[in-house]
Amino acid sequence: MTSSLKGLIELLKQLPGIGEKSAQRLAFFIMESKRDYALALSQAIQNIKKVIRECKICCNLTQEEICEICKDTKRTQDLICVVSSPQDLMAIERTNSYKGTYHVLHGTIAPLEGIGPERLRIPQLLKRVQKGKIKEIIISTNPNMEGDATALYLLEVLKPLNVEVSRIASGVPHGANIEYIDQITLEKAIEARKKMQ
Amino acid sequence: MTSSLKGLIELLKQLPGIGEKSAQRLAFFIMESKRDYALALSQAIQNIKKVIRECKICCNLTQEEICEICKDTKRTQDLICVVSSPQDLMAIERTNSYKGTYHVLHGTIAPLEGIGPERLRIPQLLKRVQKGKIKEIIISTNPNMEGDATALYLLEVLKPLNVEVSRIASGVPHGANIEYIDQITLEKAIEARKKMQ
Repeated sequence: MTSSLKGLIELLKQLPGIGEKSAQRLAFFIMESKRDYALALSQAIQNIKKVIRECKICCNLTQEEICEICKDTKRTQDLICVVSSPQDLMAIERTNSYKGTYHVLHGTIAPLEGIGPERLRIPQLLKRVQKGKIKEIIISTNPNMEGDATALYLLEVLKPLNVEVSRIASGVPHGANIEYIDQITLEKAIEARKKMQ
Repeated sequence: MTSSLKGLIELLKQLPGIGEKSAQRLAFFIMESKRDYALALSQAIQNIKKVIRECKICCNLTQEEICEICKDTKRTQDLICVVSSPQDLMAIERTNSYKGTYHVLHGTIAPLEGIGPERLRIPQLLKRVQKGKIKEIIISTNPNMEGDATALYLLEVLKPLNVEVSRIASGVPHGANIEYIDQITLEKAIEARKKMQ
């Protein structure tokens, strides 16, 4: 194998979900693709690092100083949904039902991996709340250990700021088959049962 | 989503085995990665198209005019193993047991996809054989419809050139469990049974 090919494979292997075999397949595809495609891909990768930055308000990734969601005056400005990543924001946007704003933490607290709250965009969130116009914060981190720890930490630091803090509901997902749901989810879903009207 | 991000995702989706979700994950990873990594990946992709070409003898991909395998005088020069792709060549090289040379067709005959023999590197193979120094051609295309069709076509065009033509053995793979082997493989393995000593 040539050195250029080895180098490309090594770089591709660092991408998430890409192992040795996939990296090889991708490298060979690029090598045998049309020159236009390889050039376009190469430039798109370089370009994305140049043009993308964090929104000055919500820390979502954007090409402008202020992202489209924060700029949108039709959205409820006193409601903030806190998410761990831009991908989670996009998932919620796809529901087409949430009309407030967001705040992107860019991570979750994970002591085992050495990620403390200082690595997240929490100061920016506190600054937004300190301005006094925010009524409610919906914490939408994942319902797992890291996500819950992050939610608890946020509750702690938001408490003195006189704002309502809520957590997205956790339970059996829509359309699921009870038979195949894991024990922890079922246990929590039963604990968190809601009275029917 | 910003236009630069959409563009990158569209390009990534064209890679083999990468769907919408994977393309998104890769794009976000690149976007949030260190600038050095994105730059290195971008340049490696551009570079691979510039430096890689086909070996003048065997059509394998290489950075030189003649590939390392063709240059290697320790390899048996009168034996050619015909493969569909550089990946198949690498798989055979990994066995560390084949010591002849190769010829890379860059495809297989697939009439349903409009790929006829004229799209493969068959003229280059015939030219090598016509020089008269080749004793045997081992056809190592996949044991499926396209691979078998390609093998039959090659047998036809090689026949007049007075060279031995063989096909890699097909059967139950080493370590397999007969119970789980597909019908066609089993049927062919029984047909191609070998007398035990």
